[in-house]
Amino acid sequence: MDTAITPGSRVSFETSPDRYRHWKLSVEGAVATLSMDVQEDGGLSTDYRLKLNSYDLAVDIELADAVQRLRFEHPEIHAVIVTSLKERIFCAGANIFMLRGSSHAAKVNFCKFTNETRLAIEDASQNSGIKFLAALNGICAGGGYELALACDEIFLVDDGNSAVSLPETPLLGVLPGTGGLTRVVDKRRVRRDLADVFSTVAEGIKGKRAVEWRLVDAVYPTSQFKERVARRAQELAQQSDRPATGPGVRLGPLTPKVTDDTVDYSSVRLDFDRQRRVVTLTVRAPVSPEPSTPEDMLAAGDHFWPLRAFRELDDALLRLRMNEPVLGTIVVKTEGDPAHVIAVDQALTAHPNHWLVREITLLIKRTLKRMDLTSRSFFALIEPGSAFAGTLFELALASDRSYMLDDPDRPNTIALSPMNAGPLKMSNGLTRLETRFLAEPERVREVLSEHEPFDARAAHDAGLVSFAPDELDWDDEVRLAIEGRAALSPDALTGMEANLRFAGPETMETKIFGRLTAWQNWIFQRPNAVGEKGALTAYGTQARPEFDFKRT
Amino acid sequence: MDTAITPGSRVSFETSPDRYRHWKLSVEGAVATLSMDVQEDGGLSTDYRLKLNSYDLAVDIELADAVQRLRFEHPEIHAVIVTSLKERIFCAGANIFMLRGSSHAAKVNFCKFTNETRLAIEDASQNSGIKFLAALNGICAGGGYELALACDEIFLVDDGNSAVSLPETPLLGVLPGTGGLTRVVDKRRVRRDLADVFSTVAEGIKGKRAVEWRLVDAVYPTSQFKERVARRAQELAQQSDRPATGPGVRLGPLTPKVTDDTVDYSSVRLDFDRQRRVVTLTVRAPVSPEPSTPEDMLAAGDHFWPLRAFRELDDALLRLRMNEPVLGTIVVKTEGDPAHVIAVDQALTAHPNHWLVREITLLIKRTLKRMDLTSRSFFALIEPGSAFAGTLFELALASDRSYMLDDPDRPNTIALSPMNAGPLKMSNGLTRLETRFLAEPERVREVLSEHEPFDARAAHDAGLVSFAPDELDWDDEVRLAIEGRAALSPDALTGMEANLRFAGPETMETKIFGRLTAWQNWIFQRPNAVGEKGALTAYGTQARPEFDFKRT
Repeated sequence: MDTAITPGSRVSFETSPDRYRHWKLSVEGAVATLSMDVQEDGGLSTDYRLKLNSYDLAVDIELADAVQRLRFEHPEIHAVIVTSLKERIFCAGANIFMLRGSSHAAKVNFCKFTNETRLAIEDASQNSGIKFLAALNGICAGGGYELALACDEIFLVDDGNSAVSLPETPLLGVLPGTGGLTRVVDKRRVRRDLADVFSTVAEGIKGKRAVEWRLVDAVYPTSQFKERVARRAQELAQQSDRPATGPGVRLGPLTPKVTDDTVDYSSVRLDFDRQRRVVTLTVRAPVSPEPSTPEDMLAAGDHFWPLRAFRELDDALLRLRMNEPVLGTIVVKTEGDPAHVIAVDQALTAHPNHWLVREITLLIKRTLKRMDLTSRSFFALIEPGSAFAGTLFELALASDRSYMLDDPDRPNTIALSPMNAGPLKMSNGLTRLETRFLAEPERVREVLSEHEPFDARAAHDAGLVSFAPDELDWDDEVRLAIEGRAALSPDALTGMEANLRFAGPETMETKIFGRLTAWQNWIFQRPNAVGEKGALTAYGTQARPEFDFKRT
Repeated sequence: MDTAITPGSRVSFETSPDRYRHWKLSVEGAVATLSMDVQEDGGLSTDYRLKLNSYDLAVDIELADAVQRLRFEHPEIHAVIVTSLKERIFCAGANIFMLRGSSHAAKVNFCKFTNETRLAIEDASQNSGIKFLAALNGICAGGGYELALACDEIFLVDDGNSAVSLPETPLLGVLPGTGGLTRVVDKRRVRRDLADVFSTVAEGIKGKRAVEWRLVDAVYPTSQFKERVARRAQELAQQSDRPATGPGVRLGPLTPKVTDDTVDYSSVRLDFDRQRRVVTLTVRAPVSPEPSTPEDMLAAGDHFWPLRAFRELDDALLRLRMNEPVLGTIVVKTEGDPAHVIAVDQALTAHPNHWLVREITLLIKRTLKRMDLTSRSFFALIEPGSAFAGTLFELALASDRSYMLDDPDRPNTIALSPMNAGPLKMSNGLTRLETRFLAEPERVREVLSEHEPFDARAAHDAGLVSFAPDELDWDDEVRLAIEGRAALSPDALTGMEANLRFAGPETMETKIFGRLTAWQNWIFQRPNAVGEKGALTAYGTQARPEFDFKRT
């Protein structure tokens, strides 16, 4: 059963256009076209075939890579057309046979990653000046329509056949897993009763009615479709503030050294303690001063420390999620000279409008959000020799708790920078400091106005760290905390953290990961979906689903 | 296993103080004291004993009743002390053995009702002028602390032993089920890392630290406790705008006629079609003009139509939820003269500050919210002879879809009133019209400014109903819609409706029912909680829980 993405099979999240099997990326002037052309036998497993442009994680890893590369490698790209190379089919959604064969954890992790990819598209639109136009040249079902919903505009071909649909509820007894229900009512603001009809009609809605219901922005006959799409993409491109030409920054492979118990990148390292089910995640500060002007950053390219370190951290978090499910507690450490981190922060915040600085800052922001959404417990350990300053202090703020050694004989400080004051907002729309100090908003300004580093006592008094044990207590207190955490129910921790980490406002983004994902995870366990006679199990077989009709 | 609340055993939600077994309600001047004194053998089932002031649904039904009666029967009450009559114990929370013996659906329904009861306490504080002071005279664990969190202020006795705690995660492998995690970080704004510690420490937090962490507002030694509580209750009472004296309105029993297939109240009727798994819910307009002044309303007491009809509707919804789980589709109808409904709406909106009018309006609002949160599909059928006007039109707006017959030979109209413009906001903080027209906010004003009733064509064109079939199509279209709905997976529908109904902003209230409840429902199914070796199963036995440590 568990063959699609088994805990044993290690998934790599790195790829590059020359290795894509499912997407064609073409660039013409300011407009890129990202065309889905899924290779049926190119999935992560041979247990299913990716027919009709249906997708699995392998397909989505390429999509995420393409969006990331467009941002960094092609600053001249101002708009992206998302379409398909298949005749009369845009995308059939996530592959049902893959879902059916996946463990619960694999389904949940798959949906989380695809959600993050779609949010990365929306982030590029809102913050990077890259607009996305979904050009639906054929049937667009389920996850296919959810991909379209992540784009700024949706054009649908009017050929009497092509429809948009969310057939998950009527056909599979589950929910659309990639934000569909939320975006239909909250982003496209489809009236709730029409959304209700739409989400229960397996064949979907097409033509003029799809426009009237706000499900798509326009429909055009086949004869006009390509030209209308091209024209609109040009218009969208003109809204961008991205540079007219390159050069961009090429994103080289990360090439970590991987052993059974370590993953070692240039600035990030994972050490697995499988016995205790604990990972130590260490992020190293720059070892020497880094470029301080956009020109020098461009010249440094993907060697520039923040770009390198946060690409590595992002990859490390994805590996932990997908490949190391049993390692439930992540001890977060930093190493090096905090002054180097602060210098990088100053360089980044001095040039917020330069496209590359903006992209690097957004990458850091997305990676930290990936951490917020990682269902593992994070405990930050702040010890002498650490570099929890500015951007790296966000790692402590993103952690569930932080422990800072208070030893007068061994200096140990943390420091804030302008990067803690706004550029790295959480998905709730607040900074991590604002979220932390919901009860005392004035404290955010107070701590940010402090230009000296905080020692352990000061950090504790300011509320910046959870605990500041002295050298006598440190070892025992930290050890007991980690052991205690690792002993708790992993499911209860997942739910607890999902609730405590996102205090304050909810946004469309947090709704997708909170309300929608939690309900989907619930349904993904229900016999009516995954039981012997459940709808997901029965799909594509001769059997008809049989439901226990009790409402819960 | 399923003995605690089985679908077969019919729960009644009606009670009155003379029948309370678990609470003592005493009144002195402007302050009421609601004292928990749970009778161990007084639960809904004999399978467990309600030790240490632990509770089941029977206990919470009395609490809900007490809060409701204080509002209506005691307008002179301005503050309520919530405390316990047991020595050294305030409340041990929901009874674990009850939870363990309950079906998944029963656990979920139990939590939903207790959540609504706590929100009713907060509603009374925010909107009725009744402040609540939790006087924790002893150990306060889990659901006990969640009850305290629903109060405006929390005082804890400082006796070296009494602590507040949320031990669900460390002891039971589940989440606090009644809003605890949300209220800790969002209402009391406890810092997230301290909330994390608090929620994993089974023994809880006591004394000064409980105040420092914002978990309680004050601690007092045993010798001072009662006096401090009494003094603060007097202060809270002085903030109220409720009348200094009665009379109130006595809430008599509802006395519906109940058969196997019907529940018939004075203005509400349920007809069960068990074969098709469909309920017809009919609400009748007043049969004659109703009182229009507060004085006459007071004189009419619980016979006044809106008070009577919405108490009945509330009871009907609770019976459907708890006693009729298989009836998944609710057809909503109204009958009578819409002019009578509009007249009542005008009377209510003409006197918004009169305490009784306010209470009746808030009751209508809470009942409609109960409908929004009922996990059944609601289809409103608007036919000739119906009375979907003003407050009763909210029933159509709260439905997932509405069908209005368009037959020129049989007049059929709907109408709006000021009750659609603000007093009956959903839990997302918007009116149902605002939620419906998120995409076109100006349309809300447009339809509200229309003083003539809408016929089917006009209602459809204004977006007020989903569909307006003519007499040729009506029977088939409605029948197919209902049959189609009843055939879908009940779990997928629950999740779908929970996402589509609450477009727009999330509030603490919607977070509790969206994010927190969905995660709790997920965990309530996990083997780590309810499996043979799960923590909830193992609790109170010799066995220690064994976890599958894979994180999801």
